[in-house]
Amino acid sequence: MGRVHRSIFSAALFTALALVAGACGSSSDDSVISESSAAIATERGLSEADINAALKTYTPSGQIDEYIMFASGGHSGQVFVIGMPSMRLIKEIGVFTPEPWQGYGYGDENHEDLFAAGAAGDEELTWGDTHHPALSETGGDYDGEYLFINDKANGRVATIDLRDFETKQIIKNPISINDHGGTFATPDTEWVIEGGQYATPLAWDYAPLDDYETDYRGMITFWKFDRAAGRLDYDASFAMELPPYWQDVCDAGKLVSEGWIFCNSFNVEMSTGMDPADPENSEPFEAGASAGENDYLHIINLEATTAVAAAGKTVEVNGFPMITLDTVIEENLLYFAPEPKSPHGVDITPGGEYMVVSGKLDPHVTIYSFEKIQKAIAAGGFETDQYGVPLLAFDDVVEAQVEVGLGPLHTQFDDQGYAYTSLFLDSDVARWSLGGPYREDGWKLEGTIDVHYNIGHLATAEGDTVSPDGKYLVALNKWSLDRFFHPGPLYPQNFQLIDIDEPGPEMQLLYDMPIGNGEPHYAQIIKADKLNPYTVYPEVGWDPGTMSVDPDAPQVGTEGVIRDGDNVTVNMTLVRSHFTPERVEIFEGDHVTWNLTNIETSEDATHGFTIPGYNINLSLEPGETATIEFDADNSGVFTFYCTEFCSALHLEMAGYFLVEPK
Amino acid sequence: MGRVHRSIFSAALFTALALVAGACGSSSDDSVISESSAAIATERGLSEADINAALKTYTPSGQIDEYIMFASGGHSGQVFVIGMPSMRLIKEIGVFTPEPWQGYGYGDENHEDLFAAGAAGDEELTWGDTHHPALSETGGDYDGEYLFINDKANGRVATIDLRDFETKQIIKNPISINDHGGTFATPDTEWVIEGGQYATPLAWDYAPLDDYETDYRGMITFWKFDRAAGRLDYDASFAMELPPYWQDVCDAGKLVSEGWIFCNSFNVEMSTGMDPADPENSEPFEAGASAGENDYLHIINLEATTAVAAAGKTVEVNGFPMITLDTVIEENLLYFAPEPKSPHGVDITPGGEYMVVSGKLDPHVTIYSFEKIQKAIAAGGFETDQYGVPLLAFDDVVEAQVEVGLGPLHTQFDDQGYAYTSLFLDSDVARWSLGGPYREDGWKLEGTIDVHYNIGHLATAEGDTVSPDGKYLVALNKWSLDRFFHPGPLYPQNFQLIDIDEPGPEMQLLYDMPIGNGEPHYAQIIKADKLNPYTVYPEVGWDPGTMSVDPDAPQVGTEGVIRDGDNVTVNMTLVRSHFTPERVEIFEGDHVTWNLTNIETSEDATHGFTIPGYNINLSLEPGETATIEFDADNSGVFTFYCTEFCSALHLEMAGYFLVEPK
Repeated sequence: MGRVHRSIFSAALFTALALVAGACGSSSDDSVISESSAAIATERGLSEADINAALKTYTPSGQIDEYIMFASGGHSGQVFVIGMPSMRLIKEIGVFTPEPWQGYGYGDENHEDLFAAGAAGDEELTWGDTHHPALSETGGDYDGEYLFINDKANGRVATIDLRDFETKQIIKNPISINDHGGTFATPDTEWVIEGGQYATPLAWDYAPLDDYETDYRGMITFWKFDRAAGRLDYDASFAMELPPYWQDVCDAGKLVSEGWIFCNSFNVEMSTGMDPADPENSEPFEAGASAGENDYLHIINLEATTAVAAAGKTVEVNGFPMITLDTVIEENLLYFAPEPKSPHGVDITPGGEYMVVSGKLDPHVTIYSFEKIQKAIAAGGFETDQYGVPLLAFDDVVEAQVEVGLGPLHTQFDDQGYAYTSLFLDSDVARWSLGGPYREDGWKLEGTIDVHYNIGHLATAEGDTVSPDGKYLVALNKWSLDRFFHPGPLYPQNFQLIDIDEPGPEMQLLYDMPIGNGEPHYAQIIKADKLNPYTVYPEVGWDPGTMSVDPDAPQVGTEGVIRDGDNVTVNMTLVRSHFTPERVEIFEGDHVTWNLTNIETSEDATHGFTIPGYNINLSLEPGETATIEFDADNSGVFTFYCTEFCSALHLEMAGYFLVEPK
Repeated sequence: MGRVHRSIFSAALFTALALVAGACGSSSDDSVISESSAAIATERGLSEADINAALKTYTPSGQIDEYIMFASGGHSGQVFVIGMPSMRLIKEIGVFTPEPWQGYGYGDENHEDLFAAGAAGDEELTWGDTHHPALSETGGDYDGEYLFINDKANGRVATIDLRDFETKQIIKNPISINDHGGTFATPDTEWVIEGGQYATPLAWDYAPLDDYETDYRGMITFWKFDRAAGRLDYDASFAMELPPYWQDVCDAGKLVSEGWIFCNSFNVEMSTGMDPADPENSEPFEAGASAGENDYLHIINLEATTAVAAAGKTVEVNGFPMITLDTVIEENLLYFAPEPKSPHGVDITPGGEYMVVSGKLDPHVTIYSFEKIQKAIAAGGFETDQYGVPLLAFDDVVEAQVEVGLGPLHTQFDDQGYAYTSLFLDSDVARWSLGGPYREDGWKLEGTIDVHYNIGHLATAEGDTVSPDGKYLVALNKWSLDRFFHPGPLYPQNFQLIDIDEPGPEMQLLYDMPIGNGEPHYAQIIKADKLNPYTVYPEVGWDPGTMSVDPDAPQVGTEGVIRDGDNVTVNMTLVRSHFTPERVEIFEGDHVTWNLTNIETSEDATHGFTIPGYNINLSLEPGETATIEFDADNSGVFTFYCTEFCSALHLEMAGYFLVEPK
């Protein structure tokens, strides 16, 4: 593991510098500034590199960050919104895990529906393992409208609307209980890709491990995105059956390779792990899944695939259309190419010409040529794998290999024709040059930079688009060890911001950001000015579930409590510093429908709403309406109040909810 | 509201400065450093103040922060651990809200017990509104061992062990459904104070609002802390009945005032809000609770109170001992002093001599003298409030009043004899000087600094102790408006770090930290070197619930699956990159007890464990053991895997859990 051996910039040097400025400069404020700054740097023991990094990242009060990073929160189940270069957490978006500060999943009926749709059969799921966020794209560039993300643990995908940075949809994959290789958007976001991971019987079914080769399957699911609705369209989506190799990360082709999807895989050995009943004839996964020489890069003809699905050449699995493996082969939808064993990622160059794969047990990155792949496909005459999938010859499709270091995982790109590969074992980021049409002197290692420690993914500014910005790279390091104060045995992760603006072998470490609320897996970085979020909801009475005004939302003058037998409807408005009505009196056992509207139209004038003891909390942004529904099973006196400090009389923004015993 | 009108430090000035250094300095590296730094500052438009702030806060990779701030997460229900001066989030501790990244509340039996203990009767509560964190103290100084925090929404307190920064205890207050004025520790942490907020019938009971004056009550609860056990001792604790004023923040006396507790209150008017049935004869809370001239500072003789409780002069309320208001009066446990109406805080000076109260509708801070309070009590001959509580005369007990600005809320102290008061309406922090024994020229306003915007609490380094450090102050601002990129209509809060090291009227804004995952209410700031957290658990097989080794924890060699009828016990160990056993095969309907031990002893070698579709996720730190228990109601094939990226073969750290249908 690399560690920074930072030479402390000496106090003497700073004193000298300050003296120089003082002696030679005028007695104006100029030299005073320099002396004061130099004294601070000296006192804090900052090196020249530290000073430069401080100045490159410090973002003064009121200055807006140039980039916004959307990082998965890993097994927090959330998405983190981070400003760059300040590396400050601007929002943690509730996605698969309820989060009460934003009132997500604590009574709001919209969220109840969302979580119900994301259940695995009867099993409610209140967390996820978010892995790969994907920004919506137009023409291969991020358009700033939507974000998608998957839940590896439970095989789910979610849609986030970037007008209000809220989750609008959770879908449970009907084919597979888990996933990994999603989400990835096609260049116009017509499709959002969810690839699989650990092979299981399809449709969450049971089959013994003895029947692994026949009854276990991999999958890739193609979710159709309906941009007008802002939702993945379940009814227009479908899955593809794959051999029971463990599919991993996918990427969508772009420009020259648009219309194709690439996924890699591991465990084509089809190891089923150590069998406690037969230890002599089985081996653990880390050995069994690494036994062979190669795994298979999956090359999928998306255009042909969607045509086959549209033609109805599918079967229903758990009520969901799936193209069977037989049809896949018959219709020439899928090709394999050998790849160095057990890779993590496949990443497509900005122009779509190359597919970069790193086998994590091989010190090279392997670069496939889309042109060569097409030629090989056209030439025909393939061998096949044991399931009959055509197998392209390695030498026919590989353009180059570059030795980058130990444990290469993932690759990102910049605007200078460089690629950046994370090296898990070396704890490094390698910068290497792409060949033509990117650089004349390509396919060679340019330099490396230490990271701290155990890097997984990495992300460059606009790095997954047809026109990366370069400038910044973030290393998503899994271990932090000695980098921060350690808050007990669970250490934070470490995002390291790296300056990649200067060409050549050198890169500069700018900032260490501890991540103490999740284990981010991957990130997307977008120019902040491409995002156009609401400051307040467009109209008072806005339902974020439909993104339109609810004509029945409570408004000033329509507040009150209406009883219909045992059904009670409360219509309430909120404004600084008052609930109307301020008293709600009902009977034990009543069924309550409580509608609320925050009638504020000022930025940041959010109100919260909680009923103690009822596990309810809402966050009502300016203009927002929401509904909660519950049975008043507990009698007593419950003091509802505003949970968001809204005004000088915030503590007085309260009321009494009386539930009289029967 | 104040806004920074920052003059942009001109590019020309920097160029001049660089030239000066270049022309006058040698051709050594010295001037190069200056030129490069100056160029960066110029390019980024940083002013002199910005540069200084950047250098004062930038914390290079591997440098440990000097202070650690524990901030409540507000209605996130959590606690945030933040390094200072870097203002980086090091951990979000799961407290009242389940959090899957740290495996908190997703199957671990220890946490199931914790949440069960925190339920309100039959109602499970999965969030909280954390308000006031309190560090444990020894001799009035933070000792770095424990942290306590309350849940305002549901009237609960929690205990966090700072060896592993994990929540060990949640207690539901048996008297009151909600609280506010907690937690506050006495100087040796013998007692942890939980004050009330909105008056309700005691024991979560029902009574109509017409009976408010007779049947509604305030409360303060005294939780006995058992330091050896690391838990609040429910059986040794008790409550005190108070009039149905809305008690607010409390503070414990120290040094000269040790043995006394101070709480303030609002709504001594006993407004019950707008009655929809009788709008002519009622008024909303913000008017009704602000109608009178004064509220009452509650002055409690803690020593006498604990003696009365120990003597058994209590009644049982919901099975919990409570000193009735009659006994409180009879035993001279409580005195009132008028305070400017509707205050937020009462804060005791480091030496314990003064109690500072701010009525938020009065531009002054009001300073009470403990000595004068004692004299007034000794003099006797009081008036009483309508419940018979002795009422000290304002002029007898007040030492001084200082006009500080509009909307004063809370006060903190430094090591220079200054006090700092947050001004909500002005969006300022006021620095004012204390009188003797602190400063000769005391009781006057020194200066103010703009904050952005709507400050609630504020916190200084070691500010609640008998020996504050000064140096830094954090403004906990509720609104951020134009300070950051706004991620939709829900804006982050804004923590502003302020340099208070230099005496006099000026203070320097150093850093804006957006808080995008909760609304912190209050914070405690401790010197980092006072904390001694574990790096790994002391022994393999450590149970964080008992903070000791579990002799039955799975260890290498004891792994396996044991069946006893329909009860299945799984004993599993985890190590990079392997689960043992790697296959678990059972039948639908079996009751499963799954014991796991992470046998790692290396720092940061955490493993996660999830079973897809079963809503289970654990985070097992090095050495940790945990147990999950569930009915295998869903048949199928579930691929458990390590959710914490642990090693190069992390993806291979997986196994098959087969549940065969019956």
